[in-house]
Amino acid sequence: MSERSERQVQAVWPPLRPELAGIEPYGAPQLDVPVQLNVNENPYGPSAECVADIAEAAAEAAVTLNRYPDREFVELRRALAEYLSKDAPVSADMVWAANGSNEVMLQLLQAFGGPGRTAVSFAPTYSMYPEYARDTHTEWVAGAREDDFSLDLDKARALIEEVRPSVVLLPSPNNPTGTALPPEAIGLLCEVVGDRGIVVVDEAYGEFRRAGVPSALESLATWRNLVVTRTMSKAFAGAGLRLGYLAAHPAIVDAIRVVRLPYHLSAVTQAVALAALRHAPELLGKVDELRSERDRTVDWLRGQGHEVAESDANYVLFGRFADRHAVWQGLLDHGVLIREVGPDGWLRVSIGTAAEMDTFKTALVAVLNPRGAES
Amino acid sequence: MSERSERQVQAVWPPLRPELAGIEPYGAPQLDVPVQLNVNENPYGPSAECVADIAEAAAEAAVTLNRYPDREFVELRRALAEYLSKDAPVSADMVWAANGSNEVMLQLLQAFGGPGRTAVSFAPTYSMYPEYARDTHTEWVAGAREDDFSLDLDKARALIEEVRPSVVLLPSPNNPTGTALPPEAIGLLCEVVGDRGIVVVDEAYGEFRRAGVPSALESLATWRNLVVTRTMSKAFAGAGLRLGYLAAHPAIVDAIRVVRLPYHLSAVTQAVALAALRHAPELLGKVDELRSERDRTVDWLRGQGHEVAESDANYVLFGRFADRHAVWQGLLDHGVLIREVGPDGWLRVSIGTAAEMDTFKTALVAVLNPRGAES
Repeated sequence: MSERSERQVQAVWPPLRPELAGIEPYGAPQLDVPVQLNVNENPYGPSAECVADIAEAAAEAAVTLNRYPDREFVELRRALAEYLSKDAPVSADMVWAANGSNEVMLQLLQAFGGPGRTAVSFAPTYSMYPEYARDTHTEWVAGAREDDFSLDLDKARALIEEVRPSVVLLPSPNNPTGTALPPEAIGLLCEVVGDRGIVVVDEAYGEFRRAGVPSALESLATWRNLVVTRTMSKAFAGAGLRLGYLAAHPAIVDAIRVVRLPYHLSAVTQAVALAALRHAPELLGKVDELRSERDRTVDWLRGQGHEVAESDANYVLFGRFADRHAVWQGLLDHGVLIREVGPDGWLRVSIGTAAEMDTFKTALVAVLNPRGAES
Repeated sequence: MSERSERQVQAVWPPLRPELAGIEPYGAPQLDVPVQLNVNENPYGPSAECVADIAEAAAEAAVTLNRYPDREFVELRRALAEYLSKDAPVSADMVWAANGSNEVMLQLLQAFGGPGRTAVSFAPTYSMYPEYARDTHTEWVAGAREDDFSLDLDKARALIEEVRPSVVLLPSPNNPTGTALPPEAIGLLCEVVGDRGIVVVDEAYGEFRRAGVPSALESLATWRNLVVTRTMSKAFAGAGLRLGYLAAHPAIVDAIRVVRLPYHLSAVTQAVALAALRHAPELLGKVDELRSERDRTVDWLRGQGHEVAESDANYVLFGRFADRHAVWQGLLDHGVLIREVGPDGWLRVSIGTAAEMDTFKTALVAVLNPRGAES
């Protein structure tokens, strides 16, 4: 306001929506430490060949940078459909993408949630879900997972029958616990939700699932109210690219189109994502190694006497600590950044390289047994 | 749903929010024709040097593509602040950016609009504004512009006093009419809105304003409820980059942070935008030429007996036609794509190269005087 009114005491300024006042923006601390195991990134960057191909793709896009991008990103959707078709047949008209899975989720809630509608998930789960609900004015109801973080399907069914949600959000594997859905969950929940809503299975970490765990993509042909989301951030080693996507019935893709911001995917993003997809075998080549490293980490943590959640992801939730913050801080003091997230007493560590996991293990031992380490 | 229930007749599926049902997604037709004068793009692409610099920047970002980008995009905000400081002093903590101005607008309405709150603009104006309001459940009230598309400030003040909006959206120059706000408008409207709301001056086309027309940036030091938005899509010739931004009081930037999706700006977008900003003199180098071409186009259209709105932008609204669609289609048949937008009877043409404008003029004459053209 003008200088004059600036002098008046203002009760609340700026005039942010009241429910947002005083809220800290979401986000893990971005700290510059040697071993970053806090946001479930893939520790392996792209090869020089892949980087060169990305640069070439960006250059090609830049030549016509004065023009708007293809609003329908047809070529990218075709490439994503082809990639997904390794798990189940997916056509380009079943695919949608946005700047990260979180924009995909926001669009889904804008289209299918909103005032007077409810979204359901089962806690502990990904802490952004209630934020998507809040930002779209969708009522948020969180059922509870069991002590081992699994989903009791009878309780889940009962909650859905009671609440009648428009959107059910089910990560598989779940973040931050690593828990995959049992194979029978998808059919059961899609049937209970029925035509009044959609069931979103968030497979951001799907590529890390253990052998024998199916992808929800296999159920798309059976359930038209099923949406499966994926991302290029994790197994694809493209967190910096911000490319999330989904597969669903084409009518659901059409519905999202009504709420998407026009030209939401830049020409550069489309070109770089296409280049990365051409290098899929290389970028995904480290997935098996990361799965083995995860299983070794679980075993080692259990061997150290910790409680460890079963994990189908590239992270492991372990505990329990009377003062988890002290353990987190102790690791940070040793140059290892993990994440203080999930139920009280637990900590989450992302799976890095073998060398990074060794540093983590050594640091954890030192933090928990300070005298032993000093001797 | 399962095969069995698929056979039942479903009244409405998918279960899209009722107010979105049957709505066509926003967007001008994307047609492959020789002369594209429909979406106010800059007709000049970047130089080979700029393309090479963009490719190098993308390559550098790609090396660590497995890592999330800087959530606060500090370096980019500094560069944008420096660029804006040509018009008025702007610091990095006053700058915010997103994937296109439309994401900036959505974030502003998420933070300051929403259920129970109202946004005001003055029609005819940018047709996406009511969509941002709809998608954030903000009540939308449109006052009316005068016959020459100018704003009557007394009427504007009266409407704002009556409606008490949380957000006032004022494009300057206005889209699709090209009309700039008078210099006294900003102070007057910021004062009337007061501390209960924000005044957003959308300067997407601000760089094209005529000599003597001030930027709202100059008023930022006086009005803490003022937000000025800009984009790299237009004067900056970066429509394919999707980089919109704003300057405002740092407390307003902090407020947006609560609703922004984490890591919404990819590492590649940040790097490419920074590279483009390093080439600002080149990319903006065509602005004077486009302004002259615009003024010539206005004069020519008037010489042809058309009504033409005063324009401070890189487009011109002209009319009036009993059947504007026939004129639009006629031009398209001559390979010239313009935009059927704005009040009934008017058409909007973007300013292209001199050669493109010649083709447009020849085609318009041929469409409106078919016998003369054939003789």
